[in-house]
Amino acid sequence: MQALAFDRRLEYRGDYADVVPRAGESIVRVSLAGICGTDLEISRGYMAFRGIPGHEFVGHVVETSNPELRGKRVVGEINAGCGQCAACLGGLARHCPNRTVLGILGRDGAFAEFLTLPDENLLPVPDAIPDDAAVFTEPLAAAFEIFEQIHIGRNQSILVLGDGRLGAMVALALRSQNYEPLIAGHHPEKVERLSAFGLRTIVSVPDGKFEVVIDCTGRGEAFQSALATVAPRGTIILKSTAAAGAELNLAPLVINEITVLGSRCGRFAPALEALAAKRIDPRPLIDGTFPLNDGLEAIAAAANRSNFKILLKPA
Amino acid sequence: MQALAFDRRLEYRGDYADVVPRAGESIVRVSLAGICGTDLEISRGYMAFRGIPGHEFVGHVVETSNPELRGKRVVGEINAGCGQCAACLGGLARHCPNRTVLGILGRDGAFAEFLTLPDENLLPVPDAIPDDAAVFTEPLAAAFEIFEQIHIGRNQSILVLGDGRLGAMVALALRSQNYEPLIAGHHPEKVERLSAFGLRTIVSVPDGKFEVVIDCTGRGEAFQSALATVAPRGTIILKSTAAAGAELNLAPLVINEITVLGSRCGRFAPALEALAAKRIDPRPLIDGTFPLNDGLEAIAAAANRSNFKILLKPA
Repeated sequence: MQALAFDRRLEYRGDYADVVPRAGESIVRVSLAGICGTDLEISRGYMAFRGIPGHEFVGHVVETSNPELRGKRVVGEINAGCGQCAACLGGLARHCPNRTVLGILGRDGAFAEFLTLPDENLLPVPDAIPDDAAVFTEPLAAAFEIFEQIHIGRNQSILVLGDGRLGAMVALALRSQNYEPLIAGHHPEKVERLSAFGLRTIVSVPDGKFEVVIDCTGRGEAFQSALATVAPRGTIILKSTAAAGAELNLAPLVINEITVLGSRCGRFAPALEALAAKRIDPRPLIDGTFPLNDGLEAIAAAANRSNFKILLKPA
Repeated sequence: MQALAFDRRLEYRGDYADVVPRAGESIVRVSLAGICGTDLEISRGYMAFRGIPGHEFVGHVVETSNPELRGKRVVGEINAGCGQCAACLGGLARHCPNRTVLGILGRDGAFAEFLTLPDENLLPVPDAIPDDAAVFTEPLAAAFEIFEQIHIGRNQSILVLGDGRLGAMVALALRSQNYEPLIAGHHPEKVERLSAFGLRTIVSVPDGKFEVVIDCTGRGEAFQSALATVAPRGTIILKSTAAAGAELNLAPLVINEITVLGSRCGRFAPALEALAAKRIDPRPLIDGTFPLNDGLEAIAAAANRSNFKILLKPA
């Protein structure tokens, strides 16, 4: 099959081995796949991943032993747990220490014609959601994860650091829940596009203190900006795996009794619900759709900081 | 009056200027003062403090305009807010951006014959608490602050990193609330003395994962040990102002959805209550009591890692 594969470098392959589902897994034909920051890091060697990256997708089930999934249009939760450990038995397969992760850890991903996932990871997509919105389910679910971790009060001030893909998702998720975050970015054109969603924006890091600061920059250094803008007893939420080490003085965390919360993947249900109800329409964020054999060009476009979301269209 | 004062270096002064209370403040004659890690850092230049350090004390009110305090034996909350700002009006003077802090920031402290504090900072000490237990109120209050910030479930596993003064306070506070923390230290004699309190201890950083890890080491590098021992979705509580910057990779925080909580000073009431009810008797931790004119010797004894608590006895 066709795929983008990473092995020391990323390349388009017309002859990648066909997928072989394990027991309890279905085969999905990928309709659309989204490129995110983690994919860019993987294509630079992050996680020492070998294989097909990509974990944001929408597709159709083409082979399954589960009659409820047969032929269905689906999205898929990306963590596949072992099913045996305490985390899995507690319903937290996404923290299973033996998990594989679609396109990130030990499992080929979505930048291909086909992928496999355990049946229980696949969720049918409501008809109300077109493919080019459904492909945002995974990053939106990661944004909604915030609400599963903390309660944000109605009167709390919220700052989103970062005007990229992730910042946009988090801001749209917050707005869909009637919060009014301020988004701080460094790229005037992107900030302006976010304003067009009805979001409050500012170019530069604002003065003043916020009770909740959400780091969506993907840069380790941004932690200092978060510390500078969070109010005493406030909360910093880290939404991006800032792979770079940073020189940090943790004393302000203690003195100001700051809470720092790492936040990663989330359940898909709240994201699908918001998309189906049209409380979020992320499609204006799409800046290009490429076939698999133009995959390297697509990756370059995704790495271009003036773009939001780049999609791959395998079929 | 007699005092230990810091101005480029710490020295004993027999001729330090007498205290002058501001409006709404009382004068306290210090009976006992405790030396903590922050005092040691201040004596090395931390916070660029100039004046008399010391913020753990018990004493008697000798001059006041408040009849309810006259002659009373008291301890004192160390943060004095401006009384005007949002933090102060919300009852959080200890996060007032314009605050002074006894012996730490803009206000002479307890390593002296006398000190002054706002009347509202002073709390009478119940008769059931002897002076050499009451002098632990401030560090115990800091330990109890944890319970004001998070709920720790009865079945959660708790690791306290550090076998020093702070680790001991936190462990005793936890045990007084019927938790069973494991204390991990590096000094066999100190770990053994903590075992004598009926605490579970281990020499070295344990294998295994804990749902709550409390860093009481005072060393920035310990954050790596905390990251290594905290379970996915667990909480790291930072109880010490690790002044040293550390090279940190924050990615594990996000991947494992760890919460990091900075925790500093606390309300005195819960600590006084536990001391009065004899749920905590910290007096076995006292390793020496020195007069003010042997103050430098006392500081050296406090810096000696084989000691827990060193006291000064000004009168």
